[in-house]
Amino acid sequence: MPNPTAAMLVIGDEILSGRTRDSNIHHLAGELTRAGVDLKEARIVGDDTEAIVDAVNALRTAHDVVFTSGGIGPTHDDITADAIARAFGVGIGVRDDARRILEDRYANTGQELNESRLRMARIPEGAELIENPVSGAPGFSIGNVHVMAGVPVVFQAMVASVLPKIAGGRPLLSQSYRIDRPEGDIAGPLAELAAEFPDLSIGSYPFQHQGALGANVVIRGTDGARIGAAMARLTRLFPQDEA
Amino acid sequence: MPNPTAAMLVIGDEILSGRTRDSNIHHLAGELTRAGVDLKEARIVGDDTEAIVDAVNALRTAHDVVFTSGGIGPTHDDITADAIARAFGVGIGVRDDARRILEDRYANTGQELNESRLRMARIPEGAELIENPVSGAPGFSIGNVHVMAGVPVVFQAMVASVLPKIAGGRPLLSQSYRIDRPEGDIAGPLAELAAEFPDLSIGSYPFQHQGALGANVVIRGTDGARIGAAMARLTRLFPQDEA
Repeated sequence: MPNPTAAMLVIGDEILSGRTRDSNIHHLAGELTRAGVDLKEARIVGDDTEAIVDAVNALRTAHDVVFTSGGIGPTHDDITADAIARAFGVGIGVRDDARRILEDRYANTGQELNESRLRMARIPEGAELIENPVSGAPGFSIGNVHVMAGVPVVFQAMVASVLPKIAGGRPLLSQSYRIDRPEGDIAGPLAELAAEFPDLSIGSYPFQHQGALGANVVIRGTDGARIGAAMARLTRLFPQDEA
Repeated sequence: MPNPTAAMLVIGDEILSGRTRDSNIHHLAGELTRAGVDLKEARIVGDDTEAIVDAVNALRTAHDVVFTSGGIGPTHDDITADAIARAFGVGIGVRDDARRILEDRYANTGQELNESRLRMARIPEGAELIENPVSGAPGFSIGNVHVMAGVPVVFQAMVASVLPKIAGGRPLLSQSYRIDRPEGDIAGPLAELAAEFPDLSIGSYPFQHQGALGANVVIRGTDGARIGAAMARLTRLFPQDEA
């Protein structure tokens, strides 16, 4: 059975303006690979209802599971929850269980649960809350879409609590091999190797090190024995001492 | 008149598997912001023809200009040029001007222009080449799509030469100068030169050649006389015979 497929949607003008550099895609990519879920696509859109609705609907129909980050805070440009409700065609309002989480949080910190903060308890109908152990305000899951915060430490905590609920396939295994020759020299034999092992993914990543060109070849797949066989061929093609 | 809108497409399995963290989106986002172009969307897809074709066609119809990064190297998984040709419904083959660039490059380095490397001269019909001052192999522009390398230093050099054509300003002029000294030695004087000529863009692209470190310095701007003045200063700072 093939692995489940996933997509990620990052929401935020600050990423597209270059003010902030996204780190959530990279984090999620690594976690999904370890869990045996294939991340097939990532998108970044701005704080724009239309753009969020369109992207969510495209991604949730094309993939088994979708993760979003960003736009669930207290300010006027945090419009993700409302956009998700619209994408699913359901209502949205302040929900009691989410409000209680915020009340407890702000009672403990002595901050006021004002109208802005209460926006963070707006949850689309039919959604399940995702715990936020860092700062209280919950994320939520609706259908196959998991809506999480953009702040990396909160995003990571939410991913950690959502991921175990997602049925993963076989985790992706990989082996790397460093070849101290220019990529153009090894591309031909590598293409032949890739044709011979169509069930594996064979990637080549060039580097320069102290004046010398080389490439790290990464062989990925779910069958360790096949990876071992391809790696054995690769090391015979390009013995380490020959470089 | 509203700013032109842009989209970026990052191509590469290594980003979606979490092996590599993309930095090109963040770089382009900042450059576009400075240039008055609104980056509206970014997408990341794998080394998959179908996915590339679909994304390119969606983005190039929705936005004024599209930038891609990745998948234009010599190995079997570098399929971007062919996918772009398919997206535009045009043919693709090895083009003479691109082949000459590679021939010159490899003649200088003593490497063989084999069949794999020649893949990098495959250019869709009707495209214009984008110069690659770092490693030779060109990118290309076709319609409103600019196809560039994934290696960040090459991507950045290509963005620098493409961007001025997009802002709709005056055509960009450039002069290059090779300095056979490590980049760290020339960075200080170069920064002073850049401060003295704030109207010009002065880029440094390090290389290694037969064990020696050097840098190609590219001075870009719209005023040829100013570029000439800056180049005169540069050649006095680093005379060719001194190397």
